[in-house]
Amino acid sequence: MEKLFVTGLMSGTSLDGIDAALVEIDENLSCKFIDGVSLDYSKKMQDKIKKLFEDKISTKFLCEMNVLIGEYFAKCALKLEEKTGKKPDLIGSHGVTLWHNPTKETFENMPLNSTMQIGEGAVIAERTGVTTVCDFRPDDMACGGQGAPLVPFADKIFFNKDDKSRVILNLGGIANVTVLSKNCEIFAFDTGPANMLIDNAMRKFYNKPFDKNGEIAKSGTVNQDLLNKLMSNEYFNLTPPKSTGREMFGEKYLENILSDINEKNENIIATLTMFTVKTIKDAFDKFIFQKTNVDEIVLGGGGAYNPEIIRLLENEFLPETLIRTHEDFGISNKFKEAIAFALLAYCTYKGIPNNVKSATGATKDTVLGKIIVK
Amino acid sequence: MEKLFVTGLMSGTSLDGIDAALVEIDENLSCKFIDGVSLDYSKKMQDKIKKLFEDKISTKFLCEMNVLIGEYFAKCALKLEEKTGKKPDLIGSHGVTLWHNPTKETFENMPLNSTMQIGEGAVIAERTGVTTVCDFRPDDMACGGQGAPLVPFADKIFFNKDDKSRVILNLGGIANVTVLSKNCEIFAFDTGPANMLIDNAMRKFYNKPFDKNGEIAKSGTVNQDLLNKLMSNEYFNLTPPKSTGREMFGEKYLENILSDINEKNENIIATLTMFTVKTIKDAFDKFIFQKTNVDEIVLGGGGAYNPEIIRLLENEFLPETLIRTHEDFGISNKFKEAIAFALLAYCTYKGIPNNVKSATGATKDTVLGKIIVK
Repeated sequence: MEKLFVTGLMSGTSLDGIDAALVEIDENLSCKFIDGVSLDYSKKMQDKIKKLFEDKISTKFLCEMNVLIGEYFAKCALKLEEKTGKKPDLIGSHGVTLWHNPTKETFENMPLNSTMQIGEGAVIAERTGVTTVCDFRPDDMACGGQGAPLVPFADKIFFNKDDKSRVILNLGGIANVTVLSKNCEIFAFDTGPANMLIDNAMRKFYNKPFDKNGEIAKSGTVNQDLLNKLMSNEYFNLTPPKSTGREMFGEKYLENILSDINEKNENIIATLTMFTVKTIKDAFDKFIFQKTNVDEIVLGGGGAYNPEIIRLLENEFLPETLIRTHEDFGISNKFKEAIAFALLAYCTYKGIPNNVKSATGATKDTVLGKIIVK
Repeated sequence: MEKLFVTGLMSGTSLDGIDAALVEIDENLSCKFIDGVSLDYSKKMQDKIKKLFEDKISTKFLCEMNVLIGEYFAKCALKLEEKTGKKPDLIGSHGVTLWHNPTKETFENMPLNSTMQIGEGAVIAERTGVTTVCDFRPDDMACGGQGAPLVPFADKIFFNKDDKSRVILNLGGIANVTVLSKNCEIFAFDTGPANMLIDNAMRKFYNKPFDKNGEIAKSGTVNQDLLNKLMSNEYFNLTPPKSTGREMFGEKYLENILSDINEKNENIIATLTMFTVKTIKDAFDKFIFQKTNVDEIVLGGGGAYNPEIIRLLENEFLPETLIRTHEDFGISNKFKEAIAFALLAYCTYKGIPNNVKSATGATKDTVLGKIIVK
């Protein structure tokens, strides 16, 4: 059976660097994770990337960042090639999401549903000499989907192995769930912010990138008024499929929400941490438990390393639902999304439809992505 | 011999609409133009497109315009399908150039050489159901090229038929030449503005999109001081390969150059028209005649319909060099660039390198473009 070695490249919402994973994939879509590396952006590059998210940017800057991020992605792929001694047959690159705007709005009866990932695929393909697939999201949105989440396609292959009902809960900047159960079609959605608000508040109050081991959250007390205010956001009542991001829960949101609050820093961190967990529980109650029981939650993303989040989740979900990790299933949590984009690229290359329309809301199955042939 | 029907889609620097051409292409790259259609942007859409070129834009607006322009390109392809009754096997779409910045500048030793065309290929592929190639320029720039001009690849196939030395002179917003001669390698470059300044001045002074039949230019007198000032731009001394565009010769440039000039409107139009012709002659003198004689100039682009430009060119070039048209060679001038992008897409799809490195300055031959498989 023909096997391809595929490198997946991912840069998540935290925007501190890139993950690359080398995966051996066969025609049955069996994935064997070989190895992974990460490459941090330089401090200067991180500062530049932050400026991409200002209200308005110059097109010159945008174009320069598109190629610079492409160069960084290529470096990360080459770093992995050096580590493994294996030149991949194919690369799949997610890119950096510049903007993601699932909307029903139209102009002249044409949908404005749109997204943009940058990190020029042509640069990645040229620097590595490897055929590269990029731009996975626009096609699903052109089919009326939300363009996200795309990882459920991989989750289905990684975790849909027996009769148990599982929810894959990824705690990145945003928290998203994928529901895998014989009782219902696969569905997935973003429950709301996971680390995004906590990390932004940590930077603001402590000049630290995140709440290591949840220690600040643990030392604080939840402010119930603030929690209620946070929970009143209309996003949590929207019916899935739904997705969100920095546009809704970014730095401005935090500034607004804290503008009339006088509270100790650690209590704010504790409240934001509780907010993450409560919105997850709320999403299960409103949108998941009515369709299926859940035997196991499989935790992923950076939040899976926050013991305070795990403790609070266990408070909410035990004993009916167990909290497990990706590693329990032999999947690297750290490189999970990079592995997923290797698999997505493999399918694009082979012409296999790779959106999960029950997760994105797309009207049809489609082959995602753009191929740069080398 | 297998033939493919390929639709080429082009939206030039004038930004008033889209051209689509259906071309039958065989394995020898013989091209037979079947038919073409144009689709104008609505007035509201044109206003939106203009806003893309403001100093800074929001990423939301950029993403929306990316899909809206994609929808328009798709409509134009479908209009052609309706007219010809033929669903193409492949689409090649140039997109709208948002920014094009050939530069030697670097950041952290990484090149900032960059370009961006928008008009989401995934939207075109979804709406038409046809495999689509888009984003032709970034790959050449990743190879150190200027990402332009790309049409010489097609010119070589259309016009390199006998022993005559020909220069293909395209008078779009920008004027570019492709030199085809047995005496030298193919080379090509932008000589400078063609219609861009004239059209901008016509809009400013007469509220008209262009100088119909060159009548205003004909009625005016050249202001020699203004002409000298225009000719002093350092761009005209740069050695090819070189390319330019709206970034250098857009509305701001016109405003600056006219800020301290007190002159009648028709004389300004006459001067800008003479400027176009003089910069072309200057480019021939400096960069072409030293390498080869030129038997024929083959005029193309909107400027080929301006009798005043033709009269002034004949003044400069006759009798040594004849002025001819695309139609003399059986190529539709109106749909020439759309035809060229059909051919470029065919080559991408077949894995045939399709940049002309002697024209773009790229360090290697490469397969341009991104493929969206349907």
